[in-house]
Amino acid sequence: MSDSVKVFAPGSVSNVGCGFDILGFAIDGVGDEMIITKNDQNKIIIQTVKDYEDLPTDPKKNVAGVAIQALLDDLESDQGFDVEIIKNIKPGSGIGSSAASAAGAVVAVNELLGKPYTRMQLVDFAMKGEEVASGDVHADNVAPATLGGFCLIRGYNPLDVIHIQPPADLWCVVIHPQIEIKTKEAREILSPQIPLKKAIRQWGNVAGLMAGLYTADYDLIGRSLEDHIVEPQRKVLIPEFDELKLSVMEAGALGCSISGSGPSVFALAKGKESADVIAAAMDTVYKRTDLDYKIYVSKVSEGGVKIL
Amino acid sequence: MSDSVKVFAPGSVSNVGCGFDILGFAIDGVGDEMIITKNDQNKIIIQTVKDYEDLPTDPKKNVAGVAIQALLDDLESDQGFDVEIIKNIKPGSGIGSSAASAAGAVVAVNELLGKPYTRMQLVDFAMKGEEVASGDVHADNVAPATLGGFCLIRGYNPLDVIHIQPPADLWCVVIHPQIEIKTKEAREILSPQIPLKKAIRQWGNVAGLMAGLYTADYDLIGRSLEDHIVEPQRKVLIPEFDELKLSVMEAGALGCSISGSGPSVFALAKGKESADVIAAAMDTVYKRTDLDYKIYVSKVSEGGVKIL
Repeated sequence: MSDSVKVFAPGSVSNVGCGFDILGFAIDGVGDEMIITKNDQNKIIIQTVKDYEDLPTDPKKNVAGVAIQALLDDLESDQGFDVEIIKNIKPGSGIGSSAASAAGAVVAVNELLGKPYTRMQLVDFAMKGEEVASGDVHADNVAPATLGGFCLIRGYNPLDVIHIQPPADLWCVVIHPQIEIKTKEAREILSPQIPLKKAIRQWGNVAGLMAGLYTADYDLIGRSLEDHIVEPQRKVLIPEFDELKLSVMEAGALGCSISGSGPSVFALAKGKESADVIAAAMDTVYKRTDLDYKIYVSKVSEGGVKIL
Repeated sequence: MSDSVKVFAPGSVSNVGCGFDILGFAIDGVGDEMIITKNDQNKIIIQTVKDYEDLPTDPKKNVAGVAIQALLDDLESDQGFDVEIIKNIKPGSGIGSSAASAAGAVVAVNELLGKPYTRMQLVDFAMKGEEVASGDVHADNVAPATLGGFCLIRGYNPLDVIHIQPPADLWCVVIHPQIEIKTKEAREILSPQIPLKKAIRQWGNVAGLMAGLYTADYDLIGRSLEDHIVEPQRKVLIPEFDELKLSVMEAGALGCSISGSGPSVFALAKGKESADVIAAAMDTVYKRTDLDYKIYVSKVSEGGVKIL
């Protein structure tokens, strides 16, 4: 068994329009790289590389450290690890930055220990890491980052994750305006009560999205993505959201909404060609602003964290 | 082409626990029989047989008459029909009595006219019939009665019906206490606002139910059926609901909830043997009451209205 492993930990889009707090999918086009190596010091030593040196390196505060410790506690192991995180996803992006690190860490450590856990079991540990970053228990980024594809988080206590293989030709375009939206703030903007009538439309769409994914019905996926509850409240946090959405829909997107709690915005497309046209439309809207931004064109990830 | 046709129009369970107002399935075990015959009088003549002679026979007020007229208007036809309805589902049962008549009528007439419409197209006409009975546009009973299996009504305007083939071994038990609950009253009992947190659990369950149906995962179907919103508010309308539910769950039901707006209660089961045990448990609870009731054990219908 090797003493060191390098992994690619994908970014992820949670909420997915109508599926607020229950759905997410992983994307191959952007993610962290991590190199994890066994050490003889019985402790976890974290080192982050590239731009985001202000991320905590204390293993009790770093998502990767906490996730690894949760795994080791369950295994009753005191093995130590050096963890090098090459972050390519800016924290606070809305595309699962902390989830990527948590997922990558547990998959890598599991590999180095001879795979005592299945990927599905690893989600639980990764979720504990994610909890440190967001202050809340959520699996809608860590589950897809760990498992790939779409993940439904039906419920917690016990955690109930359903993995859905994405349709073969489903592509995603994400624009990440380089501003930060705090998840906490994005949560506080939401009304705690919603009209039953809107909720019915929402769960009709959630059901339609599931049907579309299982039957590879791209049009159904598209018309089901519409979010009548969260997007209308949160879009004010994202510069040029309405124009962006209008443009990508005119460019042929299946659907478009906020990624996670923003500021990233995602669109789904059938095929790479369509995704490229959508990316160009996003670029046209945003280059008129004075904001920095990045655009990622990517297939929906099939396998989650990759061992490199 | 024959001048007369006899059809079986199945009952149906709408809402299906978590899927309030968007989901329904048809059941083979109970339904109306209808005999429809072409006449030369350019008008629709309705005759209902058995017990429920107080149903309107004016074709403009009878669901079957209105549904047929909607079809004929679309076809620009003035063909007349004699419609004999042998009702086996008591109106106000919560198992789609009016929907059965509407669905049976349009399927039969379509057959007699050489099938100008697909079953999916017929749903729209049947829905217009249903509207007369309930005063509201709803397809969550007429769609499954017409098409069979499970039907998701993702939205209206335009009507978006997704048909889902039921898992092969999915059985249903329905108990119909012979009391009447008016749909209007059952609607008025519902709070127009709901907590976002409960709505999230609900659409997680809706998504889980869809995943369970598509992958024939009976346990997932079961644990997803739970309704946190409507059932807690409506169950007070149904005698012995809590005891009934407890008993059928102990008897091995996958899940249990109110059928439509009640008073019928349904349970899902894997296999006939399990369904029979559940039916016996329902019987035990209800025979202690002084209420009349009927219990139906039935496979989920695969094809909807049957030409006999």
